[in-house]
Amino acid sequence: MSRQQRQALDALLRSVPRSETQPSPAEQRTGFAAAMTRPAPAGVAVRRTVLGGRPALELEPAGAADRGRLLYLHGGGYVIGSPDTHTGLVGELAARTGLRATSVDYRLAPEHPFPAAVDDGLAAYRDILATGTDPLELVVAGDSAGGGLSIATLLAAREAGLPQPAAVVVFSPWVDLTLSGASMRTKQDADPIFTEADVRAYADLYIGDGDPSHPLASPVFADLSGLPPLLVQVGANEVLLDDSVRLAARAGAADVEATLEIGSGLPHVYQTEHGRLDEADAALDRAARFLTSHLPTPVEAGHTQEH
Amino acid sequence: MSRQQRQALDALLRSVPRSETQPSPAEQRTGFAAAMTRPAPAGVAVRRTVLGGRPALELEPAGAADRGRLLYLHGGGYVIGSPDTHTGLVGELAARTGLRATSVDYRLAPEHPFPAAVDDGLAAYRDILATGTDPLELVVAGDSAGGGLSIATLLAAREAGLPQPAAVVVFSPWVDLTLSGASMRTKQDADPIFTEADVRAYADLYIGDGDPSHPLASPVFADLSGLPPLLVQVGANEVLLDDSVRLAARAGAADVEATLEIGSGLPHVYQTEHGRLDEADAALDRAARFLTSHLPTPVEAGHTQEH
Repeated sequence: MSRQQRQALDALLRSVPRSETQPSPAEQRTGFAAAMTRPAPAGVAVRRTVLGGRPALELEPAGAADRGRLLYLHGGGYVIGSPDTHTGLVGELAARTGLRATSVDYRLAPEHPFPAAVDDGLAAYRDILATGTDPLELVVAGDSAGGGLSIATLLAAREAGLPQPAAVVVFSPWVDLTLSGASMRTKQDADPIFTEADVRAYADLYIGDGDPSHPLASPVFADLSGLPPLLVQVGANEVLLDDSVRLAARAGAADVEATLEIGSGLPHVYQTEHGRLDEADAALDRAARFLTSHLPTPVEAGHTQEH
Repeated sequence: MSRQQRQALDALLRSVPRSETQPSPAEQRTGFAAAMTRPAPAGVAVRRTVLGGRPALELEPAGAADRGRLLYLHGGGYVIGSPDTHTGLVGELAARTGLRATSVDYRLAPEHPFPAAVDDGLAAYRDILATGTDPLELVVAGDSAGGGLSIATLLAAREAGLPQPAAVVVFSPWVDLTLSGASMRTKQDADPIFTEADVRAYADLYIGDGDPSHPLASPVFADLSGLPPLLVQVGANEVLLDDSVRLAARAGAADVEATLEIGSGLPHVYQTEHGRLDEADAALDRAARFLTSHLPTPVEAGHTQEH
């Protein structure tokens, strides 16, 4: 079924009418919320909270392990999206990992340009550690701009002298705000969602007069030394494909363990199609296994001496 | 234990005395055979055979599935190595996949320069298909130069109008004989095995007066369209790291499903350290799962209609 699923998804995404004029951020936020928002899966309790001084959504699966926690940073080009738009996706990750997840409503551009989002990401990360979470039991994930923000947050944490988490997963991360990847042009026809102009518009709103190659805006230019094991999942049908490829390359350059998964025929953040696209469910299962495999397990903790 | 294992392996590899003068191919072959050769694991029967007109080693695990077959192409810079030097590694793959493996003694340079190895790889592939193996039940794997040769063989098969196999796995593939990857310099100190000069010497012997950027010598410059799902495993401590990164990138550019795994602190073809290095065993297990997951299973074949 999956080939038909991928082709149907591609056709659906291409059928969305594109306005002649660039919609305002407010209009984009409303449209994105309507198109994207899905409920958390059954068995995942959702409640509002505050983390690092920002509103946040906590998603707790039934029977969540006492130990282990997930910090999630949503996508939306640093301009749109919220924990509410990503309730379904983060709820799936919470359910599949068995971890309590906290999804942060970091400040958005253009009202709050770079580095507001990174400041909020770091404040959230610092708050989780300050309230007693062992970094070895903490994992981080994000998609698209939130994938870039996940990496930037870990870089900011490293600069602040904070310990790193146990692992990080990013879906179709946007990590080059200079748009220098070759796929920005070579995948223009294959990408059913974004054009280079779309991506550039988000970059302009987020960076303003700043430097788009700043490593906390474009982690593809950062030294990634000291970051935890990294899983990158990306579709082959993305103008952002080379962001993922180069992020994995930068990880390897810094001797960071990295896995890059390129999915054939798949669009940007295809994981949001869970329950409708086999590859989305398989990718979320792999992401969940990757995250939990880097957490200490009760068995390992109790029996280390016997091995 | 694994961090100590990795450091001990690195120290061991660096302790190997390097001769002042370049040893002859014959001397290199003898030394490589002495250092590399390990027996097949218990339960794997080894016998000599012929495939595509070349000598080959067949490695059959006890209880091998009737269906499914592995074609293996060994590494050694196109100059050294043989199915015998890789009996241990290929035997491990056979045991972990449950597949009958055939490891081909393709012709080596400088006696037989490019494209002799590709001709032999293609002849072996063609012979496997001609003797009744369904390409959907055939997988291909190789390491280092044999990883590059695995990709070149599939490209040659595509050009010859032959069907592709179900999947391909390459360990630290050498896919750029022009040595243009940045890691050729940036990983010089980190790589305990190869210098740029070592790699260039192999390239010169294999290519001779030919073009090192020919896509069948350097698949990193090839259009990989139509190739099957690809798994690439590489160590972060390799001058050849960027060969793997760019191979995955080329796969994605051609909409080929690809997974790239970069292992922190690990050297070239670290999978040969199975039984002595935890990461080697884990990598071989992942490689085996990847290969078998792309084969039809009796359950799927028999019950497709019920799903």
